[in-house]
Amino acid sequence: LSESLEQTGVTDACALPAWDPRVARSRAVVLAACAELLSEVGFGGVTIEAVAARSGVAKTTIYRQWSSRAELMIDAFRTMATPPVAPDTGDVARDLEHMMLKLARDLVNEPWSRAIPSLADAAARDPELARLHAQFSHECRTPVVAVVARAQDRGELDPDVAPDVVCAALAGPLFFRHMVSREPVDAAFVSALLASVLNGIRAPRHAPEPRT
Amino acid sequence: LSESLEQTGVTDACALPAWDPRVARSRAVVLAACAELLSEVGFGGVTIEAVAARSGVAKTTIYRQWSSRAELMIDAFRTMATPPVAPDTGDVARDLEHMMLKLARDLVNEPWSRAIPSLADAAARDPELARLHAQFSHECRTPVVAVVARAQDRGELDPDVAPDVVCAALAGPLFFRHMVSREPVDAAFVSALLASVLNGIRAPRHAPEPRT
Repeated sequence: LSESLEQTGVTDACALPAWDPRVARSRAVVLAACAELLSEVGFGGVTIEAVAARSGVAKTTIYRQWSSRAELMIDAFRTMATPPVAPDTGDVARDLEHMMLKLARDLVNEPWSRAIPSLADAAARDPELARLHAQFSHECRTPVVAVVARAQDRGELDPDVAPDVVCAALAGPLFFRHMVSREPVDAAFVSALLASVLNGIRAPRHAPEPRT
Repeated sequence: LSESLEQTGVTDACALPAWDPRVARSRAVVLAACAELLSEVGFGGVTIEAVAARSGVAKTTIYRQWSSRAELMIDAFRTMATPPVAPDTGDVARDLEHMMLKLARDLVNEPWSRAIPSLADAAARDPELARLHAQFSHECRTPVVAVVARAQDRGELDPDVAPDVVCAALAGPLFFRHMVSREPVDAAFVSALLASVLNGIRAPRHAPEPRT
C-alpha cells in the first residue's frame, strides 16, 4: 500500500486529496479480498461484485479507487507476489542460486503461483491486463538483470550474453516445470539447471574449440 | 484419430467392439468441436453441453466414448498439438535449433498455445487432468530427450547432464516469455538462448578453470 502511494510520486500531492486513513484502510481491505479470490478462483473468475461481497466495501467505492478491473487485479496480485531481492555474495553462482531457490519455493508454496496460469490466460484475452502484467513481470526481472550485469562487469559472466536471456534461461525452466511439464521444481533441479547454464552442456572436450 | 486407435494396441481388438465408421466419424466431429472451444474459451470454460451443441453429437454419445470430461479435453488438445519430430542432421546444435524454432512458431501462431495457460490452471484444480496433461507433456519431451541422448552418445554433449534438464532449459524459456514475461519469442531469442545453454554463460577465461 505504502509502495503504491510512493509510486504516485510528488506531482500527485497536488492532484489528489490529502491522504485519508479511511481510504487507505478500505484499499487494503479490498486488495486483501481480491488477492484471496485470485488465489482461490484465478483471474478469470474474480468479479468486482465478488470483491465487494468479500471485502464488505461498496462497489462504488472500489470503482472510485481503481480505474479498471485489470488495475485492481494486478494491484492485488502485487500484494501477493513481491519481486525478488538481489543478493550480493561476491559469487554470481551463489547469487543466482539464491534467487532461483526462492522462486522454486514460491512456485510450490505461495498463493500467487496458483494464480499465474489464470493470469497468463486472462492477459491473452485482455490487452490492458497484458500490459500491466508485462510491466510487473519486468519489475520482477530487474534484480536478476542487476546481478547478471554486475557479474559481467566483474568478469565472472560473458559480457556478450544479454541479461534478459539469462533471466529467461534461469527462471523459465522453473515456471515450465511448474505449469507445463508438471515435473518437480526442487533444489536438485535448480542446482542441475544452474550448472548447465553457467558451464554449458557441450562435452568438455568440445567446449574449448567448437568444431562447427 | 488413427493414432489413438493404434495406441490402444492389440489387446483392445478383443476387448472393444469392431471398428465402426459412424463411431469414428462422431469421435472426429466431437474432438474438432472440443478443440475449437478450447482455443476460444480455454479449459475452464468448456462444458460437455457446449461440445454437444457445437458438434451436433448427443451428450449421451459423448459420454459413451469418453470416461470423463478431462479425458475428452486432453484427447481434443492432442489433435491440436502434435509432439515435435526429432531431426537428425548430424549436428546437435542444428537439431535443437530446429525443434526450438518450431516450438517458438507454434507458441505465436497455433491455437493450442492459446489454450496452454488455461490447461495449466485447470490441471492445478483437477488431479485427473493434471495426470493426463503430465503424460502428454512427457510424450512431447520424448523426441527432444532422444536428440540429447544421441548427442551424448556421439560425444557432442556432456553425458553428465540429464536430458530432462536440457529439455526444460531449452523449452522452458520459450513458454516463460510467451506466458509469464510476455516478451517476444522470435528466432533471435531462440538463437541467443541456445548459444547460452550450449556454451554456458561464464566469461570465456573462467570457463576452462573455474575458481570456486
